Amino acid sequence: MGKVNCDVLVIGGGPAGGVSAVTAKMNYPQKEVLVIREFEKQLVPCAIPYIFGKTLGSTEKDIAPCGMATDMGISTLIGKVNDLDQENKIAYTDTDEISFDKLIFATGSEPFVHDSLKHALTLKGVFTIPKNKIFIDEVKAYIDVKNEILIVGSGFIGIEMALELSEAGKSVTVVSASKHILKHSFDRELANQAKDLMVAAGVNYIGKDRVIEILANDDNNSVKAVKLLSGKVVDAEVVILATGYKPNTDLAKKAGISLGHYGGIWVDEYMRTKNHDIFAVGDCSARRDFITKDSSKVMLASTSAAEGRVAGSALYGIKYLKGFSGTIAIFSTLVAKTAFSSAGVTEEQAKSSGIDIVVGTFSGMNRHPGTIPGAQKQFVKLIAMKNGGQIIGGQIIGGNETGEMINIVGLMIESAINVYKIRSMQVATQPMLTAAPTNYPIVMAAIMAIKEIENKS
Amino acid sequence: MGKVNCDVLVIGGGPAGGVSAVTAKMNYPQKEVLVIREFEKQLVPCAIPYIFGKTLGSTEKDIAPCGMATDMGISTLIGKVNDLDQENKIAYTDTDEISFDKLIFATGSEPFVHDSLKHALTLKGVFTIPKNKIFIDEVKAYIDVKNEILIVGSGFIGIEMALELSEAGKSVTVVSASKHILKHSFDRELANQAKDLMVAAGVNYIGKDRVIEILANDDNNSVKAVKLLSGKVVDAEVVILATGYKPNTDLAKKAGISLGHYGGIWVDEYMRTKNHDIFAVGDCSARRDFITKDSSKVMLASTSAAEGRVAGSALYGIKYLKGFSGTIAIFSTLVAKTAFSSAGVTEEQAKSSGIDIVVGTFSGMNRHPGTIPGAQKQFVKLIAMKNGGQIIGGQIIGGNETGEMINIVGLMIESAINVYKIRSMQVATQPMLTAAPTNYPIVMAAIMAIKEIENKS
Repeated sequence: MGKVNCDVLVIGGGPAGGVSAVTAKMNYPQKEVLVIREFEKQLVPCAIPYIFGKTLGSTEKDIAPCGMATDMGISTLIGKVNDLDQENKIAYTDTDEISFDKLIFATGSEPFVHDSLKHALTLKGVFTIPKNKIFIDEVKAYIDVKNEILIVGSGFIGIEMALELSEAGKSVTVVSASKHILKHSFDRELANQAKDLMVAAGVNYIGKDRVIEILANDDNNSVKAVKLLSGKVVDAEVVILATGYKPNTDLAKKAGISLGHYGGIWVDEYMRTKNHDIFAVGDCSARRDFITKDSSKVMLASTSAAEGRVAGSALYGIKYLKGFSGTIAIFSTLVAKTAFSSAGVTEEQAKSSGIDIVVGTFSGMNRHPGTIPGAQKQFVKLIAMKNGGQIIGGQIIGGNETGEMINIVGLMIESAINVYKIRSMQVATQPMLTAAPTNYPIVMAAIMAIKEIENKS
Repeated sequence: MGKVNCDVLVIGGGPAGGVSAVTAKMNYPQKEVLVIREFEKQLVPCAIPYIFGKTLGSTEKDIAPCGMATDMGISTLIGKVNDLDQENKIAYTDTDEISFDKLIFATGSEPFVHDSLKHALTLKGVFTIPKNKIFIDEVKAYIDVKNEILIVGSGFIGIEMALELSEAGKSVTVVSASKHILKHSFDRELANQAKDLMVAAGVNYIGKDRVIEILANDDNNSVKAVKLLSGKVVDAEVVILATGYKPNTDLAKKAGISLGHYGGIWVDEYMRTKNHDIFAVGDCSARRDFITKDSSKVMLASTSAAEGRVAGSALYGIKYLKGFSGTIAIFSTLVAKTAFSSAGVTEEQAKSSGIDIVVGTFSGMNRHPGTIPGAQKQFVKLIAMKNGGQIIGGQIIGGNETGEMINIVGLMIESAINVYKIRSMQVATQPMLTAAPTNYPIVMAAIMAIKEIENKS
């Protein structure tokens, strides 16, 4: 057994691990920081759907750069930690024992598959989408020569894969049990617009139904079709199970680290486990929602990065106050040429959580005047507390700028800003880049929310 | 003389006037709101440069919609107020006397021309760019059949007109006395990138020089060339004086309303003149800077709209707290296919105002991974207080999303958010829409600013 010494050991090289390591080295430059990860090449997780079509076309175009970490003097080891001795602060791989002073779990997540479908994973043509380059290469090679693709699940990964594969000329069907697609991030009236655009782009959509069985060809070796709860049978050469992810906590469990809700590693606000020398960040950690404070299943590279920044600077005492308390579900995606984004709670979630809200919406154009070539419709929905007007959610549809507009809403949520402040917010507007100053849609939606508060009072 | 009665009289139909009227009607639906404006059709001011080339191509495509105001029951009168009787609350046009209870000045701004060049305004081919459709139609008709265009001034209007005319095939030269273009909004290293892109797009640029004389043809009737301080003579069939705007306050002065710095109407935080029944909003009002609290010459439709929202809801008592104190200079523009945006103070302004600052910068890509087709470089510069880290300025270069990213920075400035909060900010990131979660450039620039604070301590 080789012996390796470090001060800070980070297990996992995804966004959470990478940012934790860089932050640790930046804040404690005299400490030896070591990242151990399983793969030589690490995929950029959010871009995996774009590997399968024309956008990227290959995993080689989706490799996370690690030049910054190397330049800073962070060491990397390719391997897998199999065992952890908390008391003696030693991590064991097949070949090495690594002693550490502080440890950060950033072991990420792995695809979640319903028990009823697990049997089918042995069939050729049935795949999940793990963040594993070698596996994704195999999936891509298999899909490339097939045509009929069936995707189970209508979350971001399912929808983005469906659109990318459809654009590449495949025949794609999405099956979802949800009442509408992207249901955790969008209210029905917005989600239905996304669905319509997806269908117009050529994707076949079967909603409110469920795959109950995956059928094999006579060879009993490869997938032939899926059987739905409704009785429908849909032929498929490839079935992709995009039914979510679960925290990867095998090592943590084995080492006796306490878990929280939904199987994530329990952490306090500074991402510390009950052992303050051991931290957990990213998808492997247990999260709670920023607004409802309920346990949250949201998994986001950007939140993971934020957690990495918190953990990496709190290893040897709390150097900076944490800027947030709980996960803001903050997402964006592109459906055909229309962008959809969401932050915080949806109207449906707020109501089902018993939050007393008002809603303000506004429709306009993303350029001004609307005659500017390429101008697209823009729609903003804000969800605010009826009492006090604090903004707790927002959803936007529009052009590519939507991806950054939702970060304005995110900052409002994170900073407890209310609609009264926003009604006279100063913004930059420019004909070729934004909506009109007179009708800037986030401001107008805030004004509509104020009206709603006054109507309800 | 016709007699007209209203409760709220708004003089001016630009962004400030329009938003004031809509806000007043929304907040006091029982009040009669009347807007008086000089022109039947009102141009969208920020898009005027795009009338002259291919983007809009005509003033008819740059008309501000007023359907919302009409639908709400706001009345409009086309005319010009010549006199104002403050005591008896009557405004006089050529044909009407309008009695009012509350008055809002939204008379806007008019082109500023240096005394030394005023003589040339009588020459054919020498133009300013007022917000006047009839005049702009004449300018456009004149320019359309000419080729050699000389633009004096390197602010937003000058640069945007230069790019638009150059793209339309004209030979365009910009002359500016400033040490760099867009000097009020960008530090030199960013402005020089904009200049280089403008020159690469075909615009001829003469900096650090000044037009001292505009020369006429032998007919003494039309422009032939300009003479520069350096001795250079530049031929020109058209000269556009894009040398700024000044508040339009003739009526206010005549009526005995007090003015503030730079000739704008003096107003308090709620846009009230010393007579609390009379308000002023937009370019005709005197402004001060959000950060330095010095008098400000910044004129922005978006700030005007924010002021209109404040005034329109404070006519009969203060219904909402004002959300800001002073003007955030918050701009964006497009130079060739690269967007430039700025909010708050620049590094140069901060230093010359004696503000103790740090600067954080970060360069990345606006998509992730950077192999996404169409990905562009993205650069963020943040200016923060050395003590406490409050963000007081930012500049961004990138793709079209830059136009909304600067509104994130604007909200940080307006909400007194500091770099410590931003270091762990949660953002939405998506491969096709934004930078990477691990290197989101606003967060990274904040982290660099923190390092700078620590280095200086």
